[in-house]
Amino acid sequence: MSGVLYGLGLGPGDPDLVTIKAAAVLADITVIAYVTPLKNAAAGASFARAIAAPHLGGEKIEITIPIAMNENPAPGQLAYDQASREIAGHLDAGRDVAVLCEGDPLLYGSFMYVLERLNESCKIVTVPGVSSLGAAAAAANLPLVSRHQSLAVVPATLPEAEIKSRIAAANAAAVFKVGRNMAKVKRVLDVLGRMDGAIYIERASLPEVRVLPLADAPDDAPYFSMILTTET
Amino acid sequence: MSGVLYGLGLGPGDPDLVTIKAAAVLADITVIAYVTPLKNAAAGASFARAIAAPHLGGEKIEITIPIAMNENPAPGQLAYDQASREIAGHLDAGRDVAVLCEGDPLLYGSFMYVLERLNESCKIVTVPGVSSLGAAAAAANLPLVSRHQSLAVVPATLPEAEIKSRIAAANAAAVFKVGRNMAKVKRVLDVLGRMDGAIYIERASLPEVRVLPLADAPDDAPYFSMILTTET
Repeated sequence: MSGVLYGLGLGPGDPDLVTIKAAAVLADITVIAYVTPLKNAAAGASFARAIAAPHLGGEKIEITIPIAMNENPAPGQLAYDQASREIAGHLDAGRDVAVLCEGDPLLYGSFMYVLERLNESCKIVTVPGVSSLGAAAAAANLPLVSRHQSLAVVPATLPEAEIKSRIAAANAAAVFKVGRNMAKVKRVLDVLGRMDGAIYIERASLPEVRVLPLADAPDDAPYFSMILTTET
Repeated sequence: MSGVLYGLGLGPGDPDLVTIKAAAVLADITVIAYVTPLKNAAAGASFARAIAAPHLGGEKIEITIPIAMNENPAPGQLAYDQASREIAGHLDAGRDVAVLCEGDPLLYGSFMYVLERLNESCKIVTVPGVSSLGAAAAAANLPLVSRHQSLAVVPATLPEAEIKSRIAAANAAAVFKVGRNMAKVKRVLDVLGRMDGAIYIERASLPEVRVLPLADAPDDAPYFSMILTTET
């Protein structure tokens, strides 16, 4: 295949947190691919495409990857199979393709499912992006780790005991994918004596961002929310 | 104080991995501050300033923060005290100040030492940046974590037993600050059965980037190097 496959990190949501490199790729690229909700495959329903929108210079060929959006996403094997075949067709024809990714492409990103299907057969360029981790810490002006401290990045979808052991092993923790797992995470942090100073951040970098002490956080958090706890 | 203090994330080294937001701040800001090596306080010796250089639109007032650069950095309390006083003077006079940070300002960044000194007295805006973590994974095209996996971010400067327990508690790990601690990290990963598939990345995003299987990595790694290990 002679086209280049880009895994394009677009940052946490604010279009101004797109990098100069990613904006240049968006302006020039012929084909873009992105995940959409299974129940609403319209381009406008893709968060990644919304971040990219101000940087798209004119018409693109667009490939949607419809995936069920819930807290425990199904692998969507068939959707990734089909999208990867379509992408491979463009690469074969010499057209570059960018897979649009909110945040960073390789930290809980859907790009990895395309990457594992096409890795051996084409040139891959991953463009890293600002992660939701950095954006959440920035929204709270909260230093995550310094010097000899370690950080655990933990999905809230894990069983309670797993969340607890992983957070207990580190100085600071970022709990991703909070959503409906809020009560579970609060119980863990309470047991670990880490409720004090724990911060809840919702939609970091967007105009509707919310930063709250964890104790005041809503029980039904959106999927794009995070809890940060650091050594006090 | 009426000026705004920016903690400005500039990404891992490639000036094109600066965000559009950070580039706009750099173009407009009056005062910039950055860490320089204690033994060479020239502006040209600052990594953060080098990343910023193509985006600085004209003359700036520049504040250097001379800090001893070694793997076990002294807190440099006096240097941060003095720089923070100087920064406060500009903020008082209504001038905005940007503290330039390689990577992300709140992940092992020096911005936190200025932040803790001025936090209560001025408006703070942290602009998140692409972290060296995302850049290292991108250089290797290596997915870090997906779905229910957790990640440990661990400095290699910790004692061997501490590195081991923190990595053992997670599915994937990023070991920062490798430098002269290479042999120690290799021993840990060998004991944990994680040498296979572990990747060494040096100077991610820069033209001189190196990506090697960990087994082939040099014993004397530079400070800006990282080891990634994921579930195979």
